[in-house]
Amino acid sequence: MKSNDLKDMLGRVKLTPVQKAQSILLQELSTISPGTHCCSLADSLHRVLASDILSPEDLPPYPRSTMDGFAVRAEDTFGATPSMPAYLEIDGEVRMGQMPEGSVKKSKCYRIATGGMLPDDSDAVMMFEHTIPVDDQMIEVVKSIGSGANVIKRGEDIQKNSPALLKGHSLRPQDLGLLAGLGIAEVEVFAKAKVGILSTGDEIIHWSETPPPGKIRDINSLTLTAACEELGAEVTDFGIVSDEEDIFFNTVKQAVAENNIVLFSGGSSVGMRDLGERVIEKLGNPGILVHGVALKPGKPVLIGLCHNTSIFGLPGHPVSAMVCFELFVKPAILSFAGHVNPLPKHQATIRAKLDRNLNSAAGRLDCIRVQLQEQKDELPRAIPVLGRSGAISTLSRAHGYFFIDETSQGCNKETEVEVHLLT
Amino acid sequence: MKSNDLKDMLGRVKLTPVQKAQSILLQELSTISPGTHCCSLADSLHRVLASDILSPEDLPPYPRSTMDGFAVRAEDTFGATPSMPAYLEIDGEVRMGQMPEGSVKKSKCYRIATGGMLPDDSDAVMMFEHTIPVDDQMIEVVKSIGSGANVIKRGEDIQKNSPALLKGHSLRPQDLGLLAGLGIAEVEVFAKAKVGILSTGDEIIHWSETPPPGKIRDINSLTLTAACEELGAEVTDFGIVSDEEDIFFNTVKQAVAENNIVLFSGGSSVGMRDLGERVIEKLGNPGILVHGVALKPGKPVLIGLCHNTSIFGLPGHPVSAMVCFELFVKPAILSFAGHVNPLPKHQATIRAKLDRNLNSAAGRLDCIRVQLQEQKDELPRAIPVLGRSGAISTLSRAHGYFFIDETSQGCNKETEVEVHLLT
Repeated sequence: MKSNDLKDMLGRVKLTPVQKAQSILLQELSTISPGTHCCSLADSLHRVLASDILSPEDLPPYPRSTMDGFAVRAEDTFGATPSMPAYLEIDGEVRMGQMPEGSVKKSKCYRIATGGMLPDDSDAVMMFEHTIPVDDQMIEVVKSIGSGANVIKRGEDIQKNSPALLKGHSLRPQDLGLLAGLGIAEVEVFAKAKVGILSTGDEIIHWSETPPPGKIRDINSLTLTAACEELGAEVTDFGIVSDEEDIFFNTVKQAVAENNIVLFSGGSSVGMRDLGERVIEKLGNPGILVHGVALKPGKPVLIGLCHNTSIFGLPGHPVSAMVCFELFVKPAILSFAGHVNPLPKHQATIRAKLDRNLNSAAGRLDCIRVQLQEQKDELPRAIPVLGRSGAISTLSRAHGYFFIDETSQGCNKETEVEVHLLT
Repeated sequence: MKSNDLKDMLGRVKLTPVQKAQSILLQELSTISPGTHCCSLADSLHRVLASDILSPEDLPPYPRSTMDGFAVRAEDTFGATPSMPAYLEIDGEVRMGQMPEGSVKKSKCYRIATGGMLPDDSDAVMMFEHTIPVDDQMIEVVKSIGSGANVIKRGEDIQKNSPALLKGHSLRPQDLGLLAGLGIAEVEVFAKAKVGILSTGDEIIHWSETPPPGKIRDINSLTLTAACEELGAEVTDFGIVSDEEDIFFNTVKQAVAENNIVLFSGGSSVGMRDLGERVIEKLGNPGILVHGVALKPGKPVLIGLCHNTSIFGLPGHPVSAMVCFELFVKPAILSFAGHVNPLPKHQATIRAKLDRNLNSAAGRLDCIRVQLQEQKDELPRAIPVLGRSGAISTLSRAHGYFFIDETSQGCNKETEVEVHLLT
């Protein structure tokens, strides 16, 4: 993409709508194949499957009882009622963890506990509650049950050769359970996304130092690192880098060579922005993909791609940087990590009622930080956290955020809004 | 609590409503003080603060420009318009990261970039866009601005001695950013909840082994371990334990001595359930708190407390175990980890339309697993995943779950439901 496509006839930068910027980015990233490796099942929580998994066997491998009672031939119970019980002889007992000996003959039954393996020729389990003991050898059955009652059949959980989990699926606790049940000890997963982070600006010092007048502690590095790690990415900190062009170029070049994604932030001045743009263009094709988005806060974000590494020039203001992280960097991380759907159309939200009127400019997506205040018997209130995008405390005080979309010029008090939680 | 309080006049076990069971549990846990320790800021993501943090200083420590432009005395711009501009002499430049030399005199200004420290006697920043250069020394200002414009004041983000974050707050990326900005390198946090997990049942073998007929691989240990670890708990695996009373008692006793929470599962039979009950009662007061809840699946859960350790006897069926985990174990873990609100009244959900009619019994909370199917321009469909609570694949196929409450006898097709994501 030529950078003059990004300017209008008067040479002003064209702002890209957020959704368009996301689809440009994800379209480019969809052509990049993330690496894969093997991972032991016990270490695979939240990893993304790199191949489909077919069930190697039937689960359960044999029919099991789901109740305490008696393994029976269902037909022997047909017509049984409290006034007209069926009589079954107790001919054996299923011992837990062992294969039952013998088989259930006509008008006979075996004692069985929950989880026990059904003996041959039995096809249902009569619950204790529906039987009356006659003596040690005989029960009265007061209910008719069908074949398969209180039994989980062989392969009923999952059948041999049927798909257990598909490529691109992020493994949750219950997925590990399913794979454990199938005895799958290793899975092929996509490599974790590797992210290099650097901060720029001669006024920035490491957060562990005491700033002399004119300097200020770096906030974005730690915030962005934590946000990346939350998503399972591996982060390398490239530190605070001078905005002297050669030094900056060489550091970004190294970061690009070693990572899937490079984030630099801190350059909110026009000069720094121009430098970031030049460096992205110099590092390789396709270069700058998006140069500024119709978003508040977060407008000046730069989105680029150099060979197979995604580069983001994030605004220096911490709140702007985090909003851009949520909207652009997060989908990129998920895409590199192999998620099928890096941009979920539906995210879990909390419905709340807006607590005051808000204005916003049409043609721009506004991200409004809010505190949630619980209400008795009605939706919580969403109270906007006002303040500058340079003030990290506004993001720390917020429970979540909602959007006022490009077609709106604001949002009225009492409007129902969908709040994305900042968890 | 005497165990006969838990039975009705006919000796049947009374089922406790879910909400009541939760409040009984959390009420007991609220009296237990979790341990605390110091943690370096860089390692503190998702840890819970054990004390309030007051800001040790003003942030920012000096007024900073939020724009590229000129630091001015606002009063020098009053009345300026494009047709009647004010003229200001450029008397200096603020170098990034340095304290400005001198001060801004009347009708003068300093060049300043975003993030620069305001020079003495300036109180606003005029953006480049609202100036026209006359020559190297002089600008025309075409707009009037007020004091404080384009400036983040000293302490505007957060003031010295004001509360930055409160005890019980779980640290998110932006919270680390705030603390980094304040130079707080260590925080006092609550200890992670320690959870001991054991499985019972003579039919259960470790998931890495091949089950002979009659045995089956352990699913719950790995699922529960992963679910605990997702919440930041530290898990000790006590393995698969015989249901021989002495062995079982001694293992649970050791697990109780070493952990905040002990989970045992796998005993779905009446005998195992009675054993679990006896062991909890024997281990110490108050013993059993809840003996069965009005919940499907998950009815037979045992909830106990022995001294300061919470014990859960989870159903052996994997889906039942996970539902009980979500509703009871998760709040217990969050409570031990120091969260202020372990039982959030409002959880983020996805609204969806139910895809079929469902029946349910009044007086019981039903947890319905669903797949979500996205729709164009309308709410997604929630398609119930039917199947037995013994089938882990039903939970693996589900995207989330919703509840049919105790007062309902079902839920009609097209009803709007709030789906909790299983992420």
